[in-house]
Amino acid sequence: MNHPELRTLDPERIVRLEDDAVVVLDQRRLPDETIELRCTDAAELADAIRTLAVRGAPAIGVAAAYGLALAALRGDDLDDAYETLASSRPTAVNLRWALEEMRLDPTPERAREIHAAEVDRCRRMGAHAAGLVPSAARILTHCNAGGLATGGYGSAVGAIRAAAERGGVSLVWVDETRPLLQGARLTAFELEALGIPHAVIVDGAAAARMGAGEVDIVITGADRIAANGDTANKIGTYGLAVLARHHGIPFVIVAPTSTIDPTAWSGAAIPIEERDGAEVTTRFAARNPAFDVTPAELITAIVTEVGVHRAPYRESLPAPVTSR
Amino acid sequence: MNHPELRTLDPERIVRLEDDAVVVLDQRRLPDETIELRCTDAAELADAIRTLAVRGAPAIGVAAAYGLALAALRGDDLDDAYETLASSRPTAVNLRWALEEMRLDPTPERAREIHAAEVDRCRRMGAHAAGLVPSAARILTHCNAGGLATGGYGSAVGAIRAAAERGGVSLVWVDETRPLLQGARLTAFELEALGIPHAVIVDGAAAARMGAGEVDIVITGADRIAANGDTANKIGTYGLAVLARHHGIPFVIVAPTSTIDPTAWSGAAIPIEERDGAEVTTRFAARNPAFDVTPAELITAIVTEVGVHRAPYRESLPAPVTSR
Repeated sequence: MNHPELRTLDPERIVRLEDDAVVVLDQRRLPDETIELRCTDAAELADAIRTLAVRGAPAIGVAAAYGLALAALRGDDLDDAYETLASSRPTAVNLRWALEEMRLDPTPERAREIHAAEVDRCRRMGAHAAGLVPSAARILTHCNAGGLATGGYGSAVGAIRAAAERGGVSLVWVDETRPLLQGARLTAFELEALGIPHAVIVDGAAAARMGAGEVDIVITGADRIAANGDTANKIGTYGLAVLARHHGIPFVIVAPTSTIDPTAWSGAAIPIEERDGAEVTTRFAARNPAFDVTPAELITAIVTEVGVHRAPYRESLPAPVTSR
Repeated sequence: MNHPELRTLDPERIVRLEDDAVVVLDQRRLPDETIELRCTDAAELADAIRTLAVRGAPAIGVAAAYGLALAALRGDDLDDAYETLASSRPTAVNLRWALEEMRLDPTPERAREIHAAEVDRCRRMGAHAAGLVPSAARILTHCNAGGLATGGYGSAVGAIRAAAERGGVSLVWVDETRPLLQGARLTAFELEALGIPHAVIVDGAAAARMGAGEVDIVITGADRIAANGDTANKIGTYGLAVLARHHGIPFVIVAPTSTIDPTAWSGAAIPIEERDGAEVTTRFAARNPAFDVTPAELITAIVTEVGVHRAPYRESLPAPVTSR
């Protein structure tokens, strides 16, 4: 904890509820600028989620919880607010999960409880996952599953933090994660703030690092986990899982139980968001799916706040755990 | 051939010798601008090669051949010019091959002969490789192994052109190819000019396209091929070969015999250029190897102007063929 910008990783800096707004740290501007965005109703917050000012499956769940509390404070129609927020992004299931939790008690206190619970889950996940990481490991991660993505501490980055405290981490290979560079912008930012050694690489360089024997474990977060363990995460994750298998490297998902969707029988039931091709190129035809699905058979372990789960995941995965 | 910008793909537009300069189309500015760069001596040309104004293994060989002819016209020390050009980039072997050819006859006529021979090799490679491509194929390619990379027509893109004429091509998935986006900038530009259907994807999206059954064959070029078939090419190629193997998809290298290095026993003998990390990110620590090596065992076929070669490559690969 050696960097003045570390305060940006405090949970209430990432997302919080004020009297008249949900305030989020604008992740589109990081690391160059630390600018807050005030969303004064559910529609503005949904727009912030859609445009990735706030992103990461657990973090958008927390933000949506605050959004429903804000709608209640404003006296807005809660069904409308629910639908507006739930439809902002299709793949992350935490969004809908958090909104369902809030329906029962749409108060600021409940939203803050959900937020605190997500951060607490991360700490417990980190402790569980660190047990899978060798001492002085070279870890490869993709996208940002850090404090910014979870509302604090981080899932995959939380595991890296816990491993760094436990047996030390030699190096984190940070996939830059095109098209929006969440690895190069956000994960590197967090690791620098935490004083954990890291090197950004282009996504295409991961295979060569594995082939050179320079990766001991791959750790990523998740946007939605089906009942059989199939896991949707940032585009590129599936390829890493295939590469890890080819090289005999453990491939581990770290995600809270709020990411598990027991209604999705397999990955085929997870909707994959296709974003604007202009995020890739404005000059030529492009395709831009934001996520891919990694089959459970390629996943060494899924770590939640409950513990370390292994195949067969249909039996080992816990149900989503509510925060009260 | 339906696009006004197609003329930029004419061999003499990509690289040519004038009385007092080697003139190259500045590939760093494409597709936004078509600007020519005049290199008036070997040092300026070496700088153009180093900074990727002209890039692609066969194209830099051709450019270097013109550079040695220019040095002879200027009355410069040819050994100095040779060393200046040979040291501009370490991985592509065509550079040294072309310079060796020119040592025997450092004339403009010989350089133009080498250029014409490279384009002719591409046409022959394309015809051979097209026989491996199913009708109406969905082809995935990486980086730019097009006319820009070879001095005209293209190696991997040449195969795509020949396949399009033969049985049609449904779609070319164009890896954008970070960090310098040669796929998104150059290959898409060439395919658009040629009227061949294409879609740019981020490098991390290739696996999902394969997993969805939307890729029939992967075709790339090469920067250097060792005697056993191990192939150095743009960073990310090795990962594609692993992914293709996992999905049962043919993985084909198309490259002229000038790319073969009989003195390299295996890929371990190929030097891999590490470029400035600032090409990846200027904000955080980065690693930026420009190439990786795909083991021969992952390569379905290597296609040269001589024909289609299959494992064991130590027996099947031809020696580099001179152009006279």
